[in-house]
Amino acid sequence: MRMRHKPWAEDYLKSHPNIVDLDGRHAGKISEWFDKDQPIYIEIGSGMGQFITTLAARNPDINFISMERESSVMIKVLDKVLEQNLTNIKLICNDAAELNDYFVDGEVARVYLNFSDPWPKKKHTKRRLTYHTYLALYKQILQKDGELHFKTDNRGLFAYSLESMSQFGMYFIKINLNLHQEDDGSNITTEYETKFSEKGSRIYRREAKFH
Amino acid sequence: MRMRHKPWAEDYLKSHPNIVDLDGRHAGKISEWFDKDQPIYIEIGSGMGQFITTLAARNPDINFISMERESSVMIKVLDKVLEQNLTNIKLICNDAAELNDYFVDGEVARVYLNFSDPWPKKKHTKRRLTYHTYLALYKQILQKDGELHFKTDNRGLFAYSLESMSQFGMYFIKINLNLHQEDDGSNITTEYETKFSEKGSRIYRREAKFH
Repeated sequence: MRMRHKPWAEDYLKSHPNIVDLDGRHAGKISEWFDKDQPIYIEIGSGMGQFITTLAARNPDINFISMERESSVMIKVLDKVLEQNLTNIKLICNDAAELNDYFVDGEVARVYLNFSDPWPKKKHTKRRLTYHTYLALYKQILQKDGELHFKTDNRGLFAYSLESMSQFGMYFIKINLNLHQEDDGSNITTEYETKFSEKGSRIYRREAKFH
Repeated sequence: MRMRHKPWAEDYLKSHPNIVDLDGRHAGKISEWFDKDQPIYIEIGSGMGQFITTLAARNPDINFISMERESSVMIKVLDKVLEQNLTNIKLICNDAAELNDYFVDGEVARVYLNFSDPWPKKKHTKRRLTYHTYLALYKQILQKDGELHFKTDNRGLFAYSLESMSQFGMYFIKINLNLHQEDDGSNITTEYETKFSEKGSRIYRREAKFH
């Protein structure tokens, strides 16, 4: 589904057509949109954007996509891209279910899911971004040997995702069951992560691939 | 390898040849050893035996094997079997590496690993009971659709095992990242589990199958 955007946020996003795709006009030709031909990493649901913009600043040899369906949230990401003059990141304002409209099969090297909505009720299982219909989308757009990196403070979502991902035929390269105790210094935090970690929540993380 | 047994413990175990196999004489014909022809569940490393004997008492329609390499530990299991007059449990005193000497391919319905030695040093990885050489043994003796149930308080071992098991092509049916908070009342504790849980350790648990 195409998302409805808040008019005031949409106007701001529209004023930066070189960074933001609001209407799907780059669908199917994302690689051409970037200045350089480099691997593409995408984050689905970028929140305030601290994670993806920090990652983009540290890795100029990677092209980044921030996919976020809420225009009123995406403006925070755009602000950070502009402040730091980042040229290796583009923003797509749409729902994750539309991923395969935007990316050619095998075009993506890595997908990040950070603190996705846990949808704790059983009847909402299908909405979790690690439900098998989403995993099928990731598999389609990821290159062979592509990776899915996932971080959450929600124990139930993490356990559910270990089940659903392994049942789908994924395997885990690296798992942290208490990331902030085990981190080697390479972890880039999200705004949400900092807040909840300070309150004592454990952060769970995994890197996974498809068999 | 055949284990060396402590003489005093060995004498006691030898005095109950209908319950304990010390010398491999039932190897290859475990099913015949039991009174009834029922599914076989095995526990590798039974500690003091509380888990396996409680399980056996509650499930008379299952045959249980406790495999433990230390004769001085196994006598605690034997004591509990005798006290409760359990007829659906047998004890094998040998190393897990010898599993496929005892069981015919596909003979076992379920394997339990409870609080296995974590062998935290990297150079000891091969000794962990979820290292791929052990997983291959379990796969061999388990029936199609057989299950591996695993419980530990060791975060590092649990994370390692999620990695190694998924890489080996296993998938997870049920995962608990804080079992004692999530338990529905069906959990049977080991002596070790009670002690460490009371000290505040989280207990991790998973049920897994082979693809």
